[in-house]
Amino acid sequence: MYPQPLRALIDELGRLPGIGPKSAQRMAFYLLRQPDEDARRLAGALVEMREQTSLCDVCCNVADRSGRCDTCSDTRRDTSVICVVEDPRDVVAVERSGAFRGTYHVLHGALSPLEGVGPDQLRIAELKSRLADGGVAEVIVCTNPNVEGDATAMYLSRELSGFGISMTRPASGLPVGGDLEFADDATLGRAFDGRRPLEG
Amino acid sequence: MYPQPLRALIDELGRLPGIGPKSAQRMAFYLLRQPDEDARRLAGALVEMREQTSLCDVCCNVADRSGRCDTCSDTRRDTSVICVVEDPRDVVAVERSGAFRGTYHVLHGALSPLEGVGPDQLRIAELKSRLADGGVAEVIVCTNPNVEGDATAMYLSRELSGFGISMTRPASGLPVGGDLEFADDATLGRAFDGRRPLEG
Repeated sequence: MYPQPLRALIDELGRLPGIGPKSAQRMAFYLLRQPDEDARRLAGALVEMREQTSLCDVCCNVADRSGRCDTCSDTRRDTSVICVVEDPRDVVAVERSGAFRGTYHVLHGALSPLEGVGPDQLRIAELKSRLADGGVAEVIVCTNPNVEGDATAMYLSRELSGFGISMTRPASGLPVGGDLEFADDATLGRAFDGRRPLEG
Repeated sequence: MYPQPLRALIDELGRLPGIGPKSAQRMAFYLLRQPDEDARRLAGALVEMREQTSLCDVCCNVADRSGRCDTCSDTRRDTSVICVVEDPRDVVAVERSGAFRGTYHVLHGALSPLEGVGPDQLRIAELKSRLADGGVAEVIVCTNPNVEGDATAMYLSRELSGFGISMTRPASGLPVGGDLEFADDATLGRAFDGRRPLEG
């Protein structure tokens, strides 16, 4: 019904998370109506984001082209404690709380057999290699307090037990079934203070 | 907090209709995680859509590069009746109902002083020029049955009265305050059958 290039764009937009066919159509028609430079700016921003950002060589957080993120470039951070999170947005949330002065490790997801996410899709090999390099005393597994996050924490606790490193999980205080990203600073701070050992 | 190219992409995505800051972030991080070719395909589809689609010379509906949409290229359509709609998606909805065999005119919006949409932002000049060319017996003003759509219909009725052409509006049957795009075929069909003259 629509010209092919428009249908192709609607298809591509519909692949984005949380975007259904109706939203994809609305977005595509909006982009059709906008001035040419506005549409090109979005396409350009997308290409540039892919070209100009990389994942940090150390913690896998987003970084600019230098290959080292802000936290790992900061020499004042305590490198003996690693906070493992699912997502770069979680790093921002923890930083905002001010409860943590160590370094991070970003898994880029959580185990979810239903969605086809297994250990190989997460940045676990990179974490192991950091632990193998030595100098790490504690790993705080700060995955989301929901089913996938808990399963990932359990998996890591078993998988990393060989390193003999203290593994903890932030205390409850985070609402169960919630999303770490939306926690308020006080709650996140309490959760860090009350962290307890993780049973494998 | 995030590298600049990522922030730029989040900003651009956040301009899309119905996309808030959180959704824009979720989409940007999804695009960061995807394989390079997937992200490039979206950017490419957007540029191609802009380059390969145009608005129909006659009715302002979306068309491919030829400059004439499917309906206006179809010689079996009744060119003496024009159905005026707000949006290309409304053309699809009316076509699906099978209630109409004339041609269309797409305004690309409705009058909305609050959102800064006045008559000059709509494709009204193109409609007038079609009527001035002659051969049109009836204009069916099929804008959405809500405040903006009704105001647009009233405006057109006054603005086009000089042409001495019968102007109608589809009968109620469309739920008031609703969106034409979501109407079922039977309702749309009844609405077309029961159309009544528009009072200026």
